[in-house]
Amino acid sequence: MPVRAYAAKSAKGKLEPFEYDPGPLAPEDVEVRVTHCGICHSDIALIDNDFGFSSYPLVPGHEVIGMVAAVGSQVREPRPGQRVGIGWSCGSCGKCEWCQRGEQMYCANEKLTIVGRHGGWASSVRAHWNYALVIPDALDSAAAAPLLCAGTTVFTPLIHYNVTAPMRTAVVGIGGLGHLAVQYLAAFGCEVTAISSSHDKDETARKFGATHFIATRNSDELAKAQRSFDFILSTVPADVNWPALIDALRPQGRLAICGIPESDLKFNVFSILGEKSVSGARSGSPSDTAQMLAFSARHGIAAMIESFAMSDVNKAVDHVRTGKARYRAVLVA
Amino acid sequence: MPVRAYAAKSAKGKLEPFEYDPGPLAPEDVEVRVTHCGICHSDIALIDNDFGFSSYPLVPGHEVIGMVAAVGSQVREPRPGQRVGIGWSCGSCGKCEWCQRGEQMYCANEKLTIVGRHGGWASSVRAHWNYALVIPDALDSAAAAPLLCAGTTVFTPLIHYNVTAPMRTAVVGIGGLGHLAVQYLAAFGCEVTAISSSHDKDETARKFGATHFIATRNSDELAKAQRSFDFILSTVPADVNWPALIDALRPQGRLAICGIPESDLKFNVFSILGEKSVSGARSGSPSDTAQMLAFSARHGIAAMIESFAMSDVNKAVDHVRTGKARYRAVLVA
Repeated sequence: MPVRAYAAKSAKGKLEPFEYDPGPLAPEDVEVRVTHCGICHSDIALIDNDFGFSSYPLVPGHEVIGMVAAVGSQVREPRPGQRVGIGWSCGSCGKCEWCQRGEQMYCANEKLTIVGRHGGWASSVRAHWNYALVIPDALDSAAAAPLLCAGTTVFTPLIHYNVTAPMRTAVVGIGGLGHLAVQYLAAFGCEVTAISSSHDKDETARKFGATHFIATRNSDELAKAQRSFDFILSTVPADVNWPALIDALRPQGRLAICGIPESDLKFNVFSILGEKSVSGARSGSPSDTAQMLAFSARHGIAAMIESFAMSDVNKAVDHVRTGKARYRAVLVA
Repeated sequence: MPVRAYAAKSAKGKLEPFEYDPGPLAPEDVEVRVTHCGICHSDIALIDNDFGFSSYPLVPGHEVIGMVAAVGSQVREPRPGQRVGIGWSCGSCGKCEWCQRGEQMYCANEKLTIVGRHGGWASSVRAHWNYALVIPDALDSAAAAPLLCAGTTVFTPLIHYNVTAPMRTAVVGIGGLGHLAVQYLAAFGCEVTAISSSHDKDETARKFGATHFIATRNSDELAKAQRSFDFILSTVPADVNWPALIDALRPQGRLAICGIPESDLKFNVFSILGEKSVSGARSGSPSDTAQMLAFSARHGIAAMIESFAMSDVNKAVDHVRTGKARYRAVLVA
């Protein structure tokens, strides 16, 4: 049965109905009937070919929630009918050093859900069984969809970088990623400061669990926060004042960056000499993401979303492109 | 009794004999009769007022070995006659968060041996008792002197950044700091690659424990080492090819920098996205330095030094300034 999808046919193109034949189901793959799929900034970056490796027609969508419709001959879990989620990655070799130690995102043969294959803005999508994660019953499908990419992207650095409850933390950018990061850090027991350009999101950030708020535009609030934070997570896909963020770290603090800025990072070595770290952050392995899902269910953490019918995909993408999403747009099949 | 010292009377000045009265010994201080003192690049930076906070006359010297000559009324350890070492720091408040957790280098009231007080190129020097560390018997005084700054500067990042035996590591710069870093990493059980501008120090680096050598000048050896190292320690006080070093890190690897380059660091966020860290590194607390001394004694690690009579201090400083020291110059009283 052909997959009915929405595809960009060229760089920056509108999404158009597109059907393709996925071929026989591979022995270790599962086929998932999509019920919900989030819209991530990297979907749009791939539509626009910002990274230079998009191929068209391109079916975006890597924050998938759906029902297992079929499983390959070698698949023991998940079973048909189970509700699962699929994120940025959908397969890896299973045998290399990184796969063996549960850090599959560094497998040289990692497969990505929307690079060289078609994603979740579609009737169905496929993944290796290890990448179709069972969704805890407590999570609502629509609100859980963004967890599959945005959620694991901000949760993984917290566990990989050993963030602990006594820490004073900050989140830069209160958007699709940031509004989840604030919730996770609050649930970790940390003190959380939201850092945003203006005070527009002050009240909302406090609802997510922030206890302090810093606005950076036309303000000296960040400069006054020198030596304040053990951990800062920057989620904004834009240039920010890196030296000011580094100065806002306490000794031995870490600035973790999961939003890709436009320009190179630039700072003085003196500013990090007190054992400060500037670190990259990214979505985690299947095991990291499973931990994130269980943690989200236990703490009642979900994305704040706006739903769009999948047939309204172009309207939804425009909503995200213009920065209006509060805080994540989700397509509903 | 006045202290007979060598002081720079102005920025970039020659060292000249200089006597001063240290006043009564404070209750928690010890007075150390200097037998040996290393010459560190930061001594020269302070002579030259490179950091902008030097005051003159300035008595350099913060890699001190000597005998305890007198102790204040509140001092229980060390005792007169014991052989001790003093490094970059010589006191802290004892009560703040950082002092209480054994990270005294972040005490806002940390006292530095040669800033606002006179250092170890002298007949004697003073420090708070906690900063006069008993030197293990197995260590030779002249070869141990550089451990008090160079040694702790390269050893501390290894313990603070959890370097473990299975790691593949590299040291950038085989000089006063780097030749010690190679020895420590080899003793940690790590694979060690020495990175230097040319192959001049190849043979010597292997004697220190390196098993691989990369020359960077007019060479593609570093470019070929992509994704090779879990931990790189950069010890050179100069600009290096940071993007190439970051690319030489494996996923989740760390570039720790204890040499201060001339210009800002600059690199792309994409290059660190795989959970790579760029971190500052510096000399440790009294407890870190005591660990380093015990470890050095147990593993027979010492600086390779060239000795100069203290009266030949200007000759020794010129030797260091011109990059001729192999690998550390030490003044002998």
